[in-house]
Amino acid sequence: MISRVGVGVVGFGTVGTGVIKILLENAGLIRRRVGVPIELVRVADLDVVRDRGITLAPGVLVKDAKQVLTDPAVDIVVELVGGYDFAKRLILDAIAAGKTVVTANKAMLALHGEEISAAASRKGIDVGFEASVGGGIPVIHALKEGLAANTIQSIYGIINGTSNYILSRMTNEGRGFADTLIEAQKAGYAEADPTFDVAGTDSAHKLAILVNLGFGTPVNFKDLYTEGITHITEHDIGYAKEFGYTIKLLGIAKFIEGDVEARVHPTMLGADSPLAKIEGVYNAIQLTGDAVGDVVLSGRGAGDLAAGSAVVSDIIAGARNLLNGGVGRVPPASFQP
Amino acid sequence: MISRVGVGVVGFGTVGTGVIKILLENAGLIRRRVGVPIELVRVADLDVVRDRGITLAPGVLVKDAKQVLTDPAVDIVVELVGGYDFAKRLILDAIAAGKTVVTANKAMLALHGEEISAAASRKGIDVGFEASVGGGIPVIHALKEGLAANTIQSIYGIINGTSNYILSRMTNEGRGFADTLIEAQKAGYAEADPTFDVAGTDSAHKLAILVNLGFGTPVNFKDLYTEGITHITEHDIGYAKEFGYTIKLLGIAKFIEGDVEARVHPTMLGADSPLAKIEGVYNAIQLTGDAVGDVVLSGRGAGDLAAGSAVVSDIIAGARNLLNGGVGRVPPASFQP
Repeated sequence: MISRVGVGVVGFGTVGTGVIKILLENAGLIRRRVGVPIELVRVADLDVVRDRGITLAPGVLVKDAKQVLTDPAVDIVVELVGGYDFAKRLILDAIAAGKTVVTANKAMLALHGEEISAAASRKGIDVGFEASVGGGIPVIHALKEGLAANTIQSIYGIINGTSNYILSRMTNEGRGFADTLIEAQKAGYAEADPTFDVAGTDSAHKLAILVNLGFGTPVNFKDLYTEGITHITEHDIGYAKEFGYTIKLLGIAKFIEGDVEARVHPTMLGADSPLAKIEGVYNAIQLTGDAVGDVVLSGRGAGDLAAGSAVVSDIIAGARNLLNGGVGRVPPASFQP
Repeated sequence: MISRVGVGVVGFGTVGTGVIKILLENAGLIRRRVGVPIELVRVADLDVVRDRGITLAPGVLVKDAKQVLTDPAVDIVVELVGGYDFAKRLILDAIAAGKTVVTANKAMLALHGEEISAAASRKGIDVGFEASVGGGIPVIHALKEGLAANTIQSIYGIINGTSNYILSRMTNEGRGFADTLIEAQKAGYAEADPTFDVAGTDSAHKLAILVNLGFGTPVNFKDLYTEGITHITEHDIGYAKEFGYTIKLLGIAKFIEGDVEARVHPTMLGADSPLAKIEGVYNAIQLTGDAVGDVVLSGRGAGDLAAGSAVVSDIIAGARNLLNGGVGRVPPASFQP
């Protein structure tokens, strides 16, 4: 009889802090939903000094991710380091060690998702990645479960909060891209190097994940036509507005007669589009299924607690699966053609 | 090794027809998502003569629901008869027989959900009820899984398509309630006896289910303050419009310092509410969690294929659980305080 489920978090940055806050503050609720306590066994980060406003039990915070992987008390490894190679290695090692995996790493999944899914499937391991797209919006769960009866026909998404924040401010204030970007950076809504966000790469990563999941078709995000918002001017937005349109950066994917079309670019949306009113750092995804018709999911696309909500929901699902004896006997509900 | 999962459907009406259409048309996709085929073993309905535009294999369609319950080839019983007593008995008998249950019956769940959940929990049986609220919108999955890390703080929902259709037409065309109701009946968007829908009872049923699930608090829908739209006039809507408001029938529930407040009534919404633009038979639910913030889910709230999408998604989840050896070892993710 399993009496607790141990969690090890690798990466104590923004999302890691959110995850740990939720695990600690909602411990009672999470215990009721899982049936046994979730115990935060290890947290690994190169920076073990910085004050994140959270007091961890002595010995929990370590420098070396290996201490998370090799700790027999860790049942679930949460990868929040970002980047490609180290994160991929960490996840494959965790799978090899028989540990359940949760990750928020969209860039790595967009590149190596199939390989990770195949390794997890062979070992009968659960890999949760709800936080990789749309922050706290449960879009991955929707595609894997709630809409599982449907052939997904199209996906339209505002899936980059930074770009949407910049476009929203440009639209509401009639200002240019460069000015607005600087303000977004000051407000913490754009990174010091915002290229991934404003050039559309981050949206392409997320769209690749949604396409894999929704259409069962592996795609490499590098093969997607990707255009960002860097060349959008206040004049473009003004002209669009005159005709009743709003400009949004969309990830668009369609499944037509067995073929997949997928692309990321700024798009003019009419006022009646459910995505036209999604403002600021909010994200939204419009999914169309052959049975369900249109479903729109929206919410905060980023932030420590929004992404943390998705990660901890995956931890809860992983813990429930562990208590049920694993997920080895059914095909993974993801990344399968 | 389980090589197929057998489904028995009780009730071959609108939703039943949708469910069977999806099971037949998306059989290949569903097989890939489950790992083995889903086989439609039995369909029971008092009317075995009416043409529903679907050809069932010989012997599948029967009159007596008992033939579904007692058939050893039926692993999952789908209850789509509606009403209270017969449906409750059927579900409890199915649970006693060790069969997985899927139901779309919000009225019965609002009254007997706790009893059914307790019986299912004792037997380690999965009861799916995604179709009971919001048609094809995966809101039950969101509360049970995608947002499981959150203390849910509030729920605001447009959860009755008939009322929303009538209010939308009254708003857009400046017409009265009685006229619009008659047109809605002609168009198939309101039943011959529309009382449950327009008096708010159906919304109260659904709100009770969302409150049970979201707050872990059993409530009887009869205890909810419930006011429908029958007394709303074109003048009310006109006055609201003058001040920039739209009138919507909402189910509202708040969790404040351990207390639950829940009610159903027409509400004036400002233009910036994400629920203000939900038109016609569409439903939408705005959930606020302590970590995730606001999440809004919208989609078609009724219809054979929308509700069928939710039912079949539950069948897929139930089949996956059966293949994984059942759900007996974790607490039910629903109706638990």
